[in-house]
Amino acid sequence: MTKNVKTELEKLGGKLLTEIDKKENPNIDIPIRALSNIVFDKKSGQILLGNKSAKRYFFNVAHAKKFMQTVMVGAFCKSLIDAGIHTSIRDMYYNLKRTLPDSNENTFDEQSESDPVIVDLEVAIDVLREQLHLTTDRKGIVAGNVVIEDRGDMINWSKLGSGGWSIPSTVDEISFNKVDADFVLVVEKNAGFERLHEDKFWQKKNCILIGTGGQPSRGTRLLIQRLNNEYKLPVYVFADADAYGVYIYSVIKSGSISLAHVSDRIATPQAKFIGLTISDIYEYDLKKATIKAKDVDIKRAKELLQYDWFKKNPRWQKELNLMIEKGIKAEIEALSHRGLKFMSEEYLPDKLRKKDFLD
Amino acid sequence: MTKNVKTELEKLGGKLLTEIDKKENPNIDIPIRALSNIVFDKKSGQILLGNKSAKRYFFNVAHAKKFMQTVMVGAFCKSLIDAGIHTSIRDMYYNLKRTLPDSNENTFDEQSESDPVIVDLEVAIDVLREQLHLTTDRKGIVAGNVVIEDRGDMINWSKLGSGGWSIPSTVDEISFNKVDADFVLVVEKNAGFERLHEDKFWQKKNCILIGTGGQPSRGTRLLIQRLNNEYKLPVYVFADADAYGVYIYSVIKSGSISLAHVSDRIATPQAKFIGLTISDIYEYDLKKATIKAKDVDIKRAKELLQYDWFKKNPRWQKELNLMIEKGIKAEIEALSHRGLKFMSEEYLPDKLRKKDFLD
Repeated sequence: MTKNVKTELEKLGGKLLTEIDKKENPNIDIPIRALSNIVFDKKSGQILLGNKSAKRYFFNVAHAKKFMQTVMVGAFCKSLIDAGIHTSIRDMYYNLKRTLPDSNENTFDEQSESDPVIVDLEVAIDVLREQLHLTTDRKGIVAGNVVIEDRGDMINWSKLGSGGWSIPSTVDEISFNKVDADFVLVVEKNAGFERLHEDKFWQKKNCILIGTGGQPSRGTRLLIQRLNNEYKLPVYVFADADAYGVYIYSVIKSGSISLAHVSDRIATPQAKFIGLTISDIYEYDLKKATIKAKDVDIKRAKELLQYDWFKKNPRWQKELNLMIEKGIKAEIEALSHRGLKFMSEEYLPDKLRKKDFLD
Repeated sequence: MTKNVKTELEKLGGKLLTEIDKKENPNIDIPIRALSNIVFDKKSGQILLGNKSAKRYFFNVAHAKKFMQTVMVGAFCKSLIDAGIHTSIRDMYYNLKRTLPDSNENTFDEQSESDPVIVDLEVAIDVLREQLHLTTDRKGIVAGNVVIEDRGDMINWSKLGSGGWSIPSTVDEISFNKVDADFVLVVEKNAGFERLHEDKFWQKKNCILIGTGGQPSRGTRLLIQRLNNEYKLPVYVFADADAYGVYIYSVIKSGSISLAHVSDRIATPQAKFIGLTISDIYEYDLKKATIKAKDVDIKRAKELLQYDWFKKNPRWQKELNLMIEKGIKAEIEALSHRGLKFMSEEYLPDKLRKKDFLD
């Protein structure tokens, strides 16, 4: 995959050189990332960019600096790929920041200037920043009957004790040597991951267990998508019964507005929500373990009600309305109210057996 | 170690039963955790609890509920140890929360009531919550020439690809089978960990590389201490040149006020600070990559100047004063200003060769 990205960068550079040779105004065509160009694609079930774009010109006072920055970032990424190294977007900023000769003008003044230029480049040549060898913060852990190869090491996710494998910021380059699992269970909380891991849930239910530690990192989302795409594994998201938990599910499934340009690369439209739901609170007698919802929870739940992908499903409408009417929420840890192994030995097996998922 | 903790819990329970049999007022002796009982122990170089304590009585209206809560938590932890399972302090709260029969009184109303009771128990019987099988949030990654045994798995930290081993919340029960390293390098940033990991720094310099992702978790601090105690490995902390980075170092080395009761279990007084310092900015020509310090940075630096363990070292006085005078700070990523491999191939080797550490 790396080779294609390098070719794309070279094509972009070649195009600019040709324009210079022809004494044309060098320009880069960049898809627009404003709300006006973001659509929910019903067929793929993803939040995507529309097809509006704008040209960034070298000979345009309003564009010239950004044009220079875009070319700098492109050249930097090509040098990363050539050298076979990766770096963070923050390191890139420090590396590229300098004062232009005979001026007081800096290439970049703040990282808030270089970050959007990376996204410009991602959408202009249609690649992921991970493929440009730029890393984002890592988060997430995984365990299961899987053997991968990564940087020459063979890593068995079933032999990592209580720790699990720390998911790096880029999983683009790992290869799967053995994947023996029936589904992927994504858990919002690290505590939930540890509890299920200790109870050997992934072994008993033959699944891959992923802990996201809150909103999943790009690396974790990409890993979930790869397991779903390449091995056709169903993905079940296990999150809190509150607006934030439902939003985490929504981001895994359909992408987010701010990352609409990469939805097709990191979202998993087949993902389903296994719980926790407000209905579960009544079904599993967890009323004592609920929390009063705050105003912001209610407000967010009302917003989620309006999302296209929640509108089409009456069960989501019911659950979100329950959240608002009852004014309560519950965390997955609430299941411990029924016993510490209730989650791994009763609740989740029950849900899986009944195929009680929200889509 | 588990067996001793169980014995300690049983001893506490036995003492209460004896008092009941003798018709005495059952009580638990708990060291005081207020500032008035926190001391910096110069000999051990740690922030520790003093020797003041207070008794919590069953027959005392102001104590009765807390007494009940303490006994409940003790019984819960004993049941965890008996069952050989671990759980988070949040799960414990949900598990223990209930309404007392024939009353409107809950055992616990909020987690903010059960959390301090855990600490009471830790100090009362002088154990770590990890030994009580209670987990805290996990964070931190490690790589190096080390083989450990954890829950029956043999895990080789040098064979985990780009991921590394995710440090669990409890490392009390892992055993080291092979430790081949000259020192431990603790990096404040995950991005720094990834850069050094990719450059195989731990291989080239024969060290153990630990990424903390900000303030290290208890599990990570315990791991650092175990490597230092059991294998006499020097520990070098690599953090930002700002008050927060220095504070992270201080916590690893001497503990913190809020966790003074466990300093001797998780702090590493032998830890040294390898950088980044404000002097480094001038020494390594990084001025272009600095950030203007905020008021809060200056305020924190002034507070650090007053810490006993920074007072005794003129170099710390110099660095903290420079931070205040120059009004600048710098992140470890600033080293990328000099090239992406500058950190792994020049800066750190240089510091190690010169033994340029702050103590």
